[in-house]
Amino acid sequence: MIASTPAPPYYAVIFTSLRSVGDNGYDQMSEKMMNMAQEQDGFLGIESVRQELGITISYWRDLQSIQKWRDNADHKFAREKGRKIWYKSFTTRIAKVERDYSFTGNNVE
Amino acid sequence: MIASTPAPPYYAVIFTSLRSVGDNGYDQMSEKMMNMAQEQDGFLGIESVRQELGITISYWRDLQSIQKWRDNADHKFAREKGRKIWYKSFTTRIAKVERDYSFTGNNVE
Repeated sequence: MIASTPAPPYYAVIFTSLRSVGDNGYDQMSEKMMNMAQEQDGFLGIESVRQELGITISYWRDLQSIQKWRDNADHKFAREKGRKIWYKSFTTRIAKVERDYSFTGNNVE
Repeated sequence: MIASTPAPPYYAVIFTSLRSVGDNGYDQMSEKMMNMAQEQDGFLGIESVRQELGITISYWRDLQSIQKWRDNADHKFAREKGRKIWYKSFTTRIAKVERDYSFTGNNVE
């Protein structure tokens, strides 16, 4: 769902990827990493969608919390397997959110 | 596909949305806006995926080029229809990409 984030500034880690063929344990690890990320200090929210292209955006309080999650041993192991097995290619972008605005329609249940 | 962007810094407009029910001209307008965006000065690339949640990220050289595209009359008209008809809710985030890195596997055709 759309992540509910505090007022800017905060950070976004934009991960855009193309998967290799086959699951090979990906779904299980993906779920584990999603759950672990949400327990980290400074985690603000996550949005994730995949068709052929996958986009996962995680939101963080600051660069320090991103770095700390990056140094997490389980996360390192998962990223290593990602490069070896699960991804054909990916790009990671670290971005500082400077402004945001939201809309919710009237005619929504 | 994964957007091929120049070295940072550059900007990302992260648009996360939930659609209302029915097409109502959305697909046609979406394609038109995608094509128009790519013709704008300062446009660097776009990545777009939708399951239930949709994420579209467009990349831009600077805030000026984002603002200019925002002021485009056709784009304004499309955004207005978006709020009235096509979207249940959305969040737009303007973010400065400070760092990025890419990976391409060896065993890819």
